[in-house]
Amino acid sequence: MKFCSNCAARLAKRVPPGDSLPRYVCDACGEIHYQNPKLVVGAVPVWDGRLLLCRRAIEPRYGYWTLPAGFMENDETAAQAALRETLEEAGARIELEAPYSLISVPHVNQVHLFYRARLLDLEFKPGEESLEVVLFEEARVPWKEIAFRTVGLTLKHWFADRKSGSYGFHAEDIPLR
Amino acid sequence: MKFCSNCAARLAKRVPPGDSLPRYVCDACGEIHYQNPKLVVGAVPVWDGRLLLCRRAIEPRYGYWTLPAGFMENDETAAQAALRETLEEAGARIELEAPYSLISVPHVNQVHLFYRARLLDLEFKPGEESLEVVLFEEARVPWKEIAFRTVGLTLKHWFADRKSGSYGFHAEDIPLR
Repeated sequence: MKFCSNCAARLAKRVPPGDSLPRYVCDACGEIHYQNPKLVVGAVPVWDGRLLLCRRAIEPRYGYWTLPAGFMENDETAAQAALRETLEEAGARIELEAPYSLISVPHVNQVHLFYRARLLDLEFKPGEESLEVVLFEEARVPWKEIAFRTVGLTLKHWFADRKSGSYGFHAEDIPLR
Repeated sequence: MKFCSNCAARLAKRVPPGDSLPRYVCDACGEIHYQNPKLVVGAVPVWDGRLLLCRRAIEPRYGYWTLPAGFMENDETAAQAALRETLEEAGARIELEAPYSLISVPHVNQVHLFYRARLLDLEFKPGEESLEVVLFEEARVPWKEIAFRTVGLTLKHWFADRKSGSYGFHAEDIPLR
């Protein structure tokens, strides 16, 4: 059961005229409540060849390692979201380089976007959503304890690109099965 | 006045514990109703050096020209959204190349993403949201009648990149004033 956020009437799910998909439609006020994917934006902060990862202090994936990232907010740009999330989760100040990976994750209705970034100092410390924040060299990355596939894919691209000497932009999907 | 979509109670806007921004919070069921930017995904379809544009049959910007694009839907990938919107608005079948531009538009809480694309045939025709669909060579692009700044920026990048012989990836912002 869903209710209209404008007028509190009960919503019905049906295909509006001229549309092709069922939507939550309000018969009382006429509003169509579309539901769209959310952007999760983060960074790949680098210091002297090592990458900064955060160990999650929240669900999902409590205790697993992730790049700093989170839901983009209204009134900010994607770049601002990457800076804000890195500061909130890792207490880390970064300078963004280019967007690096863009990965659609339709099974959770998200699109993940990571920027390459340069860590500006070593004064980082875990925020409320992190248990610890650590710089990893490639050989020490905890591959079996990475929180999300988008983070694992982004890290793999980064190490492969470093080896090849050229950082591209990586767009891909984790399709619905 | 806003209401909870789960339980129809009135919502209050306040900063939840551990958060830093005011949110619509439901005191009845506890739900926090986050509001996040939406992704608008489209394509730059090319045929023999000419670009496909659609003249809008809907508001906003009725009668102005745009690249085919629209809100990404749940359960699809960004690439699927670009193909779908191009088919819906321009009746055009395309093959996507790489993501080309990613532009944050915080004043409308959107992020626009355009893919470079190859038009597969000339069987296009306007969908319900378009008045006409036309292939433009550079000298004939209706620059003063482009619907959205993100479309104008993307077109300018495309013609500049074509001249330089190399298509990059363009990330930028249209910041809040």
